[in-house]
Amino acid sequence: MPDIVDLIRAKRDGGRLAEADIEWLIGAYTGGVVADEQMSALLMAVFFRGLDPGELRAWTAAMISSGERLDLSSVAAPTVDKHSTGGVGDKVSLILAPLVASCGAAVPQLSGRGLGHTGGTLDKLESIPGWQASLDNAAIVAQLRQAGCVICAAGAGLAPADRRLYALRDVTGTVESIPLIASSIMSKKIAEGTAALVLDVKVGSGAFMKKQVDARRLAETMRGIGRRMDKKVQALITDMNQPLGYAVGNALEIMEASQTLQNVGPADLTKLSLELAARMIFLGKKAASLEEARRTAEKHLVDGSAYRKFKEAVTAQGGNAQALDKFELLPNATGMREITSPRAGYVAAIDAEDIGTASNMIGAGRDKKEDSIDPAVGIILEVKAGEKVDAGSVLCRIYYTKEDRVEEAADMVEDAFRVSGQKPDERELILEVVG
Amino acid sequence: MPDIVDLIRAKRDGGRLAEADIEWLIGAYTGGVVADEQMSALLMAVFFRGLDPGELRAWTAAMISSGERLDLSSVAAPTVDKHSTGGVGDKVSLILAPLVASCGAAVPQLSGRGLGHTGGTLDKLESIPGWQASLDNAAIVAQLRQAGCVICAAGAGLAPADRRLYALRDVTGTVESIPLIASSIMSKKIAEGTAALVLDVKVGSGAFMKKQVDARRLAETMRGIGRRMDKKVQALITDMNQPLGYAVGNALEIMEASQTLQNVGPADLTKLSLELAARMIFLGKKAASLEEARRTAEKHLVDGSAYRKFKEAVTAQGGNAQALDKFELLPNATGMREITSPRAGYVAAIDAEDIGTASNMIGAGRDKKEDSIDPAVGIILEVKAGEKVDAGSVLCRIYYTKEDRVEEAADMVEDAFRVSGQKPDERELILEVVG
Repeated sequence: MPDIVDLIRAKRDGGRLAEADIEWLIGAYTGGVVADEQMSALLMAVFFRGLDPGELRAWTAAMISSGERLDLSSVAAPTVDKHSTGGVGDKVSLILAPLVASCGAAVPQLSGRGLGHTGGTLDKLESIPGWQASLDNAAIVAQLRQAGCVICAAGAGLAPADRRLYALRDVTGTVESIPLIASSIMSKKIAEGTAALVLDVKVGSGAFMKKQVDARRLAETMRGIGRRMDKKVQALITDMNQPLGYAVGNALEIMEASQTLQNVGPADLTKLSLELAARMIFLGKKAASLEEARRTAEKHLVDGSAYRKFKEAVTAQGGNAQALDKFELLPNATGMREITSPRAGYVAAIDAEDIGTASNMIGAGRDKKEDSIDPAVGIILEVKAGEKVDAGSVLCRIYYTKEDRVEEAADMVEDAFRVSGQKPDERELILEVVG
Repeated sequence: MPDIVDLIRAKRDGGRLAEADIEWLIGAYTGGVVADEQMSALLMAVFFRGLDPGELRAWTAAMISSGERLDLSSVAAPTVDKHSTGGVGDKVSLILAPLVASCGAAVPQLSGRGLGHTGGTLDKLESIPGWQASLDNAAIVAQLRQAGCVICAAGAGLAPADRRLYALRDVTGTVESIPLIASSIMSKKIAEGTAALVLDVKVGSGAFMKKQVDARRLAETMRGIGRRMDKKVQALITDMNQPLGYAVGNALEIMEASQTLQNVGPADLTKLSLELAARMIFLGKKAASLEEARRTAEKHLVDGSAYRKFKEAVTAQGGNAQALDKFELLPNATGMREITSPRAGYVAAIDAEDIGTASNMIGAGRDKKEDSIDPAVGIILEVKAGEKVDAGSVLCRIYYTKEDRVEEAADMVEDAFRVSGQKPDERELILEVVG
């Protein structure tokens, strides 16, 4: 049996952990043989020393085998999923799952909750009356066979070691490690049973990764794990220096996703959704080329089949699909406050992290796991970066239900906008393709 | 109130912790607000990033103020202590305390137990029938006033934060950090109330520090802490590539210390004791120059006053001082085994760590805090590095009371000796003076 202190010291001093040692380590940690304080010291050593490809494969495999693997073999359609590292206003999953399913691939989107300044897909869907996030494995498989897509909570049985490790990393300052992030994401996605995966790695002020070089390293690391574990992985690195689309907040984002699926959504959100969908369709072999996949995706968005699929999937999980047309059936805020521009000029920047944090402040998100969220509240931008504004023009509207922290949130939102005399350079939304 | 995760991340990313944050951290850890897994992650970050002089001062001060400080103000003589980083056969403390006390300075030697391959001073003294390691603060002060020296157990009230931190470092692979080692030693020594401190930093195979450059950094770091906290500190860096003196084991080392105090001890042990004593006497202002201090030390060794002081101090703590003359009153081993040289040549090396480990194996030391030790057993070298031996010459003798692991220990001892055809270069015992 390996000695945990020897393993910590080996990693600390730049050594390589044997695959058998890693397998033992993850098992011993979930089994309580290795204590939290030992694992956190090792995680910090990994932060500094990294994990090489072989270590990373073993680490990911050990987390997968700590729990069950979803068996999707009875799903006839090719399975393909998407993972986003999280951004403000990022409601792409809501659009992608039905869009790709309407093109013939099956999308098993097992998700977590939102934490910090980015919202969670499950939280957004829960603003639809009746919608249920929890499905058992049989129901997940049945819905995939029937509707072709499912967005639901990842059960406690999938990669439980990752769950424990993540909770530990969260309180020990060891979240920001590329191999640990990559293995955490990949272990859950592989355990969920998808055959292929498209990654949306966000970079910018509103993203976890602030620098493109780090986003690229993360994308490449996840691709490397996929390669070693027979999963096709492609990644887009996309800009998150301003919120995606206009809406930030749970019910507000459901509305915007619904509009986008009806071809009246924001240009940036539509563009990114189509590009990610095309790559999923191509990896899922529902098109012979990426070009053909792009045309397929666009066709199913335009002809309404993606939107019908969205309603079908929402209905299948108990949600009232009428709310997707009649927004008054969604939770609605009771108060509204406008933020206006102090001067004429161009919107040079909209700090996405500040917008996300302000939205959380009035109840749209949670700081701690236990916090409840207010589905009705949030922020709707009236302008995006690059647009011209007058002094007094509305920059955005804050929708709230409680007065408590509106003032504070309003100050933060005001600070988030930078209005400049000079027209800013146009920013690319899709910065890079990895793979 | 600082956020612990922010502090961990700041240190991890190479930032500097504010002194108030460090004070909070140590208090919050001992108070249970900061969890073990958070502290161990921070300690690992400190391993990689270090602590700057200001951080180190604050860290040490916080550990000191986590407990009581011994008040030595009623001791008229100047106080001066010595700390050794630990070596095999290192019984210098037993000689130094009475020698320096006989020259007029007061020596408060508050010590810990031996752990690992190096022996503990208290364990050695406990082989003297009746001798008591535990004294309360009043008794410590009284003995210092009366006898001028005391070697006893450091009470739980001194730097309790260090005690908890050390236990955590021991199981989390974070022992080997120079700032953490330095602050641990200095916090205990400053809490014990000594005005000056001489350090014996060992380097070599039998020492914690394997490289002279690390030993120098440790010595300089401790001196730096002392400077910022008004304690005079000098350090010698000394060789620990072979055991110090000939005897390794508890009662065996008491005998050798006793012989050394009677001027019939090994040359290396006598030389190092005199040099350390001279520096203590000089720092304790009992001599106007280091040269004068050397003469004073030698005089008090030669004229028997140091040996009389040793007996006085042992008696004061309940020990039977007759045992220091009549060794048959000390615990005696029941079995002996000779290790002989397989060939003629020169003793090129005697691996001190192997000798220490072999001695522990037969009961002289403990692997775990809970282990009991056998005071009678140990190893007596017959030769030292550089000496000429014939094939079949006795290299050393193993003294034991139980047969269990003698065979294993004998193999290890045999491997510890390297006999070569070439006479090795002579090695310096005192490698460097820091300060």
